[in-house]
Amino acid sequence: MMMYLAIDVYGTLVDTAGVTDQLAGLVGDRAPEFATAWRAKQLEYTFRRALMHDYADLPTCTRQALDHTCLTFGTDMAATDRDALMALYRRLPAFADAEPGLRALRDLPLRPFAFSNGNRDDLDHALEAAALAPLLAGVVSLNEARTFKPHPAAYAYFHRAAQTGGAETWLVSGNPFDVIGAVTSGMHAVWIKRSPTMVFDPIGVAPTAVVSSLIELTAMFRERMRVAK
Amino acid sequence: MMMYLAIDVYGTLVDTAGVTDQLAGLVGDRAPEFATAWRAKQLEYTFRRALMHDYADLPTCTRQALDHTCLTFGTDMAATDRDALMALYRRLPAFADAEPGLRALRDLPLRPFAFSNGNRDDLDHALEAAALAPLLAGVVSLNEARTFKPHPAAYAYFHRAAQTGGAETWLVSGNPFDVIGAVTSGMHAVWIKRSPTMVFDPIGVAPTAVVSSLIELTAMFRERMRVAK
Repeated sequence: MMMYLAIDVYGTLVDTAGVTDQLAGLVGDRAPEFATAWRAKQLEYTFRRALMHDYADLPTCTRQALDHTCLTFGTDMAATDRDALMALYRRLPAFADAEPGLRALRDLPLRPFAFSNGNRDDLDHALEAAALAPLLAGVVSLNEARTFKPHPAAYAYFHRAAQTGGAETWLVSGNPFDVIGAVTSGMHAVWIKRSPTMVFDPIGVAPTAVVSSLIELTAMFRERMRVAK
Repeated sequence: MMMYLAIDVYGTLVDTAGVTDQLAGLVGDRAPEFATAWRAKQLEYTFRRALMHDYADLPTCTRQALDHTCLTFGTDMAATDRDALMALYRRLPAFADAEPGLRALRDLPLRPFAFSNGNRDDLDHALEAAALAPLLAGVVSLNEARTFKPHPAAYAYFHRAAQTGGAETWLVSGNPFDVIGAVTSGMHAVWIKRSPTMVFDPIGVAPTAVVSSLIELTAMFRERMRVAK
């Protein structure tokens, strides 16, 4: 029985902290803190835009979150530097476990899709640059649905776009809000907890499974399939 | 012509940073940072809950945000201390300008309502404790609508509950996300910018007006009414 995977991109296949080195040249020691604040505000803007029913695409949210972070940090950053950071966001580094993790999955009866808030062109670019595209069955961009995770319509859109046809479907994500959104919308979801210090939201919704890297996925699914037989 | 005011409560009439002194006894020097993180996570949970269509009331979001903040700060806080903080949240201190600000508004043809994500009982308690209740025409709790700001349904609910009947309606809030939500939903909105360092989201939606305290509201509305004549 074929299963479907909806694999998140930003924070799961590619590392949003990949902007930190570039930021160090602009904001010095505060680069890690700045990168974290920028990412948090970017997500907040996606939540608020989707909630307000006033969609703007992910690059717009990312750019406006950068502008907000410059304001809160009191950073007078030139437009050209902001452009350079935005360009860097299109070629974020893949996590080291992404390529071997996806490669190992090919031994199993799974159809793995990228599934992201990002625009299609950015996603294609990122997945090509990270050499992950050939390992995926397709790419589902929520820009086409004009909403963001964790709206239930986002997960419903995955089912339609990937043509899951009611088959068992798993979200794979390093982002707890995404895992919770998927479970709340009727998917299974595995949380990629890459660091022991990562915190899952204590709001009464648990991941279906937790692994510490994408490389562990294959063993996890193989074991579940064995038990299910 | 009667105008309607939807006056936000948490962060506008009462100060969510009012938990900081109590926190100092529990987390020491990190109390201000902890209070800020707790408040940010509380708002994030309201955004995500409303977006997921998985409503839980504001006290639940507040408590779960406290639990999350304890986890991220590595704070092993006793349940009794968490209960004490939650109790304190029901009697947050009013801003110094709240009572004189509302009192001065009484000279104008305005109907001022409290309008909040909070539960009715908590709002009544907070407004009584701060001696603000007699200065308001009523209280609109979004718990009754089972959603949160900035969903358009939240602002629509205010119109229904306060029976604005299509009359000019202003949100009054210290929270930029709320100002943006109201403007996006067709209200006027005044941002209470209590400190020069407060940042408004640079996302292309401006407040109708900005004042530095609730006391300035009366002069602002009086001037607008004079000009409109």
